[in-house]
Amino acid sequence: MNLSQALLHALKNHGACEIFGIPGDFALDFFVEVERAGVLPLYTLSHEPSVGFAADGAARYGGGLGVAAVTYGAGALNMVNAVAAAYAEKTPVVVISGAPGESERETGLLLHHQAKTIDSQFAIYREITCHQARLDDPARAPADIAAALQACLRHSRPVYLELPRDKVVVPCRAVEMLAPTLSDPQAVAACVDELLARLMSARSPVLMAGIEVRRYGLEAKMAQLIRRLNIPVVTSFMGRGVLADCGLTIAGTYLGVAGDAEVTELVEASDALLMMGVILSDTNFGVSRRKIDLRKSILALDGQVTLGYHVYSDISLEALLDGLLARTDVHPVRSNFPATASRELPRNLRADEGPISPADIAAAVNDLVEQGHHFPIVSDIGDCLFTALDIRNSALLAPGY
Amino acid sequence: MNLSQALLHALKNHGACEIFGIPGDFALDFFVEVERAGVLPLYTLSHEPSVGFAADGAARYGGGLGVAAVTYGAGALNMVNAVAAAYAEKTPVVVISGAPGESERETGLLLHHQAKTIDSQFAIYREITCHQARLDDPARAPADIAAALQACLRHSRPVYLELPRDKVVVPCRAVEMLAPTLSDPQAVAACVDELLARLMSARSPVLMAGIEVRRYGLEAKMAQLIRRLNIPVVTSFMGRGVLADCGLTIAGTYLGVAGDAEVTELVEASDALLMMGVILSDTNFGVSRRKIDLRKSILALDGQVTLGYHVYSDISLEALLDGLLARTDVHPVRSNFPATASRELPRNLRADEGPISPADIAAAVNDLVEQGHHFPIVSDIGDCLFTALDIRNSALLAPGY
Amino acid sequence: MNLSQALLHALKNHGACEIFGIPGDFALDFFVEVERAGVLPLYTLSHEPSVGFAADGAARYGGGLGVAAVTYGAGALNMVNAVAAAYAEKTPVVVISGAPGESERETGLLLHHQAKTIDSQFAIYREITCHQARLDDPARAPADIAAALQACLRHSRPVYLELPRDKVVVPCRAVEMLAPTLSDPQAVAACVDELLARLMSARSPVLMAGIEVRRYGLEAKMAQLIRRLNIPVVTSFMGRGVLADCGLTIAGTYLGVAGDAEVTELVEASDALLMMGVILSDTNFGVSRRKIDLRKSILALDGQVTLGYHVYSDISLEALLDGLLARTDVHPVRSNFPATASRELPRNLRADEGPISPADIAAAVNDLVEQGHHFPIVSDIGDCLFTALDIRNSALLAPGY
Amino acid sequence: MNLSQALLHALKNHGACEIFGIPGDFALDFFVEVERAGVLPLYTLSHEPSVGFAADGAARYGGGLGVAAVTYGAGALNMVNAVAAAYAEKTPVVVISGAPGESERETGLLLHHQAKTIDSQFAIYREITCHQARLDDPARAPADIAAALQACLRHSRPVYLELPRDKVVVPCRAVEMLAPTLSDPQAVAACVDELLARLMSARSPVLMAGIEVRRYGLEAKMAQLIRRLNIPVVTSFMGRGVLADCGLTIAGTYLGVAGDAEVTELVEASDALLMMGVILSDTNFGVSRRKIDLRKSILALDGQVTLGYHVYSDISLEALLDGLLARTDVHPVRSNFPATASRELPRNLRADEGPISPADIAAAVNDLVEQGHHFPIVSDIGDCLFTALDIRNSALLAPGY
Repeated sequence: MNLSQALLHALKNHGACEIFGIPGDFALDFFVEVERAGVLPLYTLSHEPSVGFAADGAARYGGGLGVAAVTYGAGALNMVNAVAAAYAEKTPVVVISGAPGESERETGLLLHHQAKTIDSQFAIYREITCHQARLDDPARAPADIAAALQACLRHSRPVYLELPRDKVVVPCRAVEMLAPTLSDPQAVAACVDELLARLMSARSPVLMAGIEVRRYGLEAKMAQLIRRLNIPVVTSFMGRGVLADCGLTIAGTYLGVAGDAEVTELVEASDALLMMGVILSDTNFGVSRRKIDLRKSILALDGQVTLGYHVYSDISLEALLDGLLARTDVHPVRSNFPATASRELPRNLRADEGPISPADIAAAVNDLVEQGHHFPIVSDIGDCLFTALDIRNSALLAPGY
Repeated sequence: MNLSQALLHALKNHGACEIFGIPGDFALDFFVEVERAGVLPLYTLSHEPSVGFAADGAARYGGGLGVAAVTYGAGALNMVNAVAAAYAEKTPVVVISGAPGESERETGLLLHHQAKTIDSQFAIYREITCHQARLDDPARAPADIAAALQACLRHSRPVYLELPRDKVVVPCRAVEMLAPTLSDPQAVAACVDELLARLMSARSPVLMAGIEVRRYGLEAKMAQLIRRLNIPVVTSFMGRGVLADCGLTIAGTYLGVAGDAEVTELVEASDALLMMGVILSDTNFGVSRRKIDLRKSILALDGQVTLGYHVYSDISLEALLDGLLARTDVHPVRSNFPATASRELPRNLRADEGPISPADIAAAVNDLVEQGHHFPIVSDIGDCLFTALDIRNSALLAPGY
Repeated sequence: MNLSQALLHALKNHGACEIFGIPGDFALDFFVEVERAGVLPLYTLSHEPSVGFAADGAARYGGGLGVAAVTYGAGALNMVNAVAAAYAEKTPVVVISGAPGESERETGLLLHHQAKTIDSQFAIYREITCHQARLDDPARAPADIAAALQACLRHSRPVYLELPRDKVVVPCRAVEMLAPTLSDPQAVAACVDELLARLMSARSPVLMAGIEVRRYGLEAKMAQLIRRLNIPVVTSFMGRGVLADCGLTIAGTYLGVAGDAEVTELVEASDALLMMGVILSDTNFGVSRRKIDLRKSILALDGQVTLGYHVYSDISLEALLDGLLARTDVHPVRSNFPATASRELPRNLRADEGPISPADIAAAVNDLVEQGHHFPIVSDIGDCLFTALDIRNSALLAPGY
Repeated sequence: MNLSQALLHALKNHGACEIFGIPGDFALDFFVEVERAGVLPLYTLSHEPSVGFAADGAARYGGGLGVAAVTYGAGALNMVNAVAAAYAEKTPVVVISGAPGESERETGLLLHHQAKTIDSQFAIYREITCHQARLDDPARAPADIAAALQACLRHSRPVYLELPRDKVVVPCRAVEMLAPTLSDPQAVAACVDELLARLMSARSPVLMAGIEVRRYGLEAKMAQLIRRLNIPVVTSFMGRGVLADCGLTIAGTYLGVAGDAEVTELVEASDALLMMGVILSDTNFGVSRRKIDLRKSILALDGQVTLGYHVYSDISLEALLDGLLARTDVHPVRSNFPATASRELPRNLRADEGPISPADIAAAVNDLVEQGHHFPIVSDIGDCLFTALDIRNSALLAPGY
């Protein structure tokens, strides 16, 4: 088995379904190997930002790893923005970049496609990925690949693998999958106890579901928990579309002063706002951050749980959900809150002579969904994203970045 | 005067003629100031890579500073590739990026458009620019701007200025232009002496003109020197188009085994190859580097002169040219080499039924030039760039990156 | 006022009582200013490690800032070990080092006393101090000094100030003392509530007092709390001597398997071990760390409070103590635990013919104390420190490092 | 073979004759191995600075590698100043520090002897050594050791090896000695030609011998060259004692305005000052740097040769000497300068009633030498070092630092 094959099998074993990419001088040999190996289908595009967005979108939609393969320099540097967006929105994307071989590192010539130094690209990707490795030592490569892919899945964030072109076909052992890092069961139990006590003693608990729920594939478990807790549910702005297919009534999407007044009131008046996987960005909270005192809410994010003024570290969202489900198993803890009605969305588009407004588009899409058509929605940012809020809560692929 | 105005006047005084840009959240106030001040015209585009390429192209063509203004995050990160290209090809581009204000740095919320940390963008630009400054202190800003613009012109490479949005209209003193760093006249004299002695004792000296000659605005001086020395002249691949309008006979563009055999022979057989401002990249030399022993050539690049095994540091290309012109002033040192004839280029395109080949396009353009039309050529990389070699030596704007 | 004077007054205002130092080439002018200003007495020693230990000892004993002034290079580098010890044991020491002036930075000559680069010393001190500043800009110096001294007191750790010799007498504004950073009262209240609930529900709570209690001058408050809580008290190994003069019965010093068996049992069997300002080092816990599950104890250290699996950040030890005292004010919360008897110490040394053992020395000192002599004890590490454990709990100055 | 044995044999093969050290917690096992292996004798001292100075002195005197073995933290940090001095004066010292084992790195407890982080010590030594390695991977250790020892000899500067205590006896292959990096013969030839031409055309060439001549064991070759060139010879201040036993007449030691007027005049009036291995420190040149224009002298130092305004890189002092000897082999190039007489030194000490002056001590030593006693001199810095200048040019071990 050569290094490329080891990498390709590892990608597949960790959940990748395909590779998006554009070949180039420093990546030609790897692309040959990708095609020869036939482990994962290869989709070649023509613009590197699209490669990044495609890999990101595949991971958002399919739930596995997105893979983007590019060449060194003009390839990888042209994808910086797309990868930074994946970092900010927590999408597990594996970036594979070709790179100069060992002898080229020593010529003394500047390489075409190189920035300040040969290692500049590595330094740049350090700022936009959660893990980086240069696969320049076949003996160490299996461990390096395993660590990178584990980090990608664990943090649900992009990682960067640099594959020098003289290492593409060197012999290499297969990559063993690392066991996931488990949360301490006693810590989880302590956290679950306190969280449930806090919820049960609250007058008006609200659960806000965020993007991590989807990224970690936890929608079914989350829906089960919500049914047992019976508390009102909203999504964050970036989490719009989460839980879309779970048959739950979602009260709406929280947008602060810019959003639906009832939803805003529901969230901001809650005395126990439980945010599950909600990214603390100004996109989610910028417009209203004076209203929500984050320190008094409960936040499960980035592998830790913050309850008011204190923090439980090293508790994954999945461990927390499992813990909550285990504790509410026999005796479901139903609050008395009436299931909040979802707000009215634009429907029944009439073909009149008036100009087409964004709300008309939303109405048209809603009508279509009503007729039984189901599909995910891909939305651009800006006005598109705001209009998408008027569309039935479909699975939504949108960069909030 | 506010900080934006101080910056705009400084840009103009250092040679900028216009600003290319795309506004965005963190840069809105600066764009307002740009329009209000009216110091430099603003051209708004719709895609950040284009902003970078436009600023780069303006600097390549016009010879002054190119200016690219973008917003923080999605703006600046989307321009990384274009700026890296400017770095590699030594174009003086000033990148002005909006940035979060002081209070936003302290909210604890992630900012939309932010990568790993608020300072990630700064760290990324450190890898693709030769100087960086954050204009967060109005008292220090004039000195910071002056140092950045001096570095931009001196190294002919991009620089990065980050302007936090809460500093856009704070009062600020005017920017004083720093005196250029001069080379030590005695060092220049020593270097000129040795260089001329080497040239004069050579059997077959050849001068290769590179891209720095244009970047530093030295084409006229270089042409004058060439006339006095009377030695054959070629351009490097990336320097193609240099000296196009000087009325000199250029023997051709050196491309090693991939290029014209006569030019290759001329260069590789020379016992005194004088490279003026030629970037030592694999683009220029990759295909033939075994043939040219760089250690035995004379190379003026990046502010230093390498003669065989030793190096004179801190000698700018302009100082070297001035020194050479001063020494050859009274008694021009003419070698006996016959002016090399330029090679035959495709001409006289006939409208026949055959498919159009790249050479046909070159012929068509040459015919047009023959008829008296003069224009610079903008070429894409790859096949386009190779075809451009068959076109009369016009001023050429092309990324070799 | 010149920069040296501003610095000296600031040191005094922040609690320094004297300066220990050794002059040298790069510090001569500053030493002249110290003597001329007469703001703080100067004690000149002859060996730099001693300067560091003297400043450290003065801070340990007197409770204010310790100040060590040395020259660049051979001075400051010879004090690295002493300052590292102060860092590890949390002593607030201000290191003031002379440094080359601006013109010397630019000569190109290596400076005598310089390591790899002129900035190597700064880089080295970054590893052993909690804050560093180079006072090379008189306009910024007052703010830099204020921030450094605040950090020194807040973290009770060494800080590093580098004073270039050409800046010693430049004019400078006075240093304003920064307001201390306060802990959030609501966070403190939440933490205090949980902590007291945990203590009150425990069967066998034990309080372990650590070195921070002395460093932050909190012995009186701590004693008051202990009287109200009425729970057994031990000290950590590095905290030996804390609370010595408070009239409390201290059960002993915890040393794990190496220490008194009763104390070890008391601590390790506790179901609510409250560690106040105890450094989590292997010196304190190394020998027995399997016995104490730190995650189930309560630890106030380094400005945060860890209760089992969760952490309250940004709560100073003083804020915690004040909060606890406020809550136990009206209704002291007395547990039913009998005041633990202090263990028997060696006494009544007899002058016999036997060899003198360490225990004999402890007995002799205890006899002396019994007779009414009170004094602090300075102990070397190793056997000395272990012998000191057999001496009455006097204020002890000892490096556990 | 275990890792310690591999290291010990490598030290011996690279020229070490003994080990100086002080054991401590993290180094105990290594010291056991040192004694058990019996490869190199071990001298145990009682104060870490002395360990550093002993290893430095051994290398200065014996010419091989000096080795200093200490424990982590209080051991290594206490030796920083001595190692920095070795760095500044170019002594090849190998620092071997114990370190925490892998499991200790992960306890979460602070380690006694640790500064800010476990890696702080490594970071500190990066500033005072020319190469560092942590021997935590037995598979990589032989290559790491070989690279470190090669760097130590090549740069004649200290290197740092960190040996975690759980790796002391792990199996390990033997260390293969790396071939020395050779200078390019053509570059050496070009440099030698230019250097000799410069010397021969000078009116008053002078050779100044510096400390590198001794460090690299080149005194015999240098003496041979001096005899062939027949030009006046002085030593630098830090190089005092170089060439002491070669039977040459040394004109004196250059000290600028602080030194012998004739020597100063000789050096400063020279139109071709050839400095061989002279460190460009302010110690050597600080007092008179206005008089010597370094840019017009010839300087062989740190593996490169600077001739006036240009530099030949990658030419070792030995390669230069060999090249010069090869070129002056058949036809010695004798200048016409009369061998400069050495200046008069204090002699014939009389036992009178007057107080003993430094000059008296010098006289006493000179009288002793006169009587046939030969010995190296170890001198402290400051007045001692200045007095040592009045002693016959014996091999001198003195820190100029």
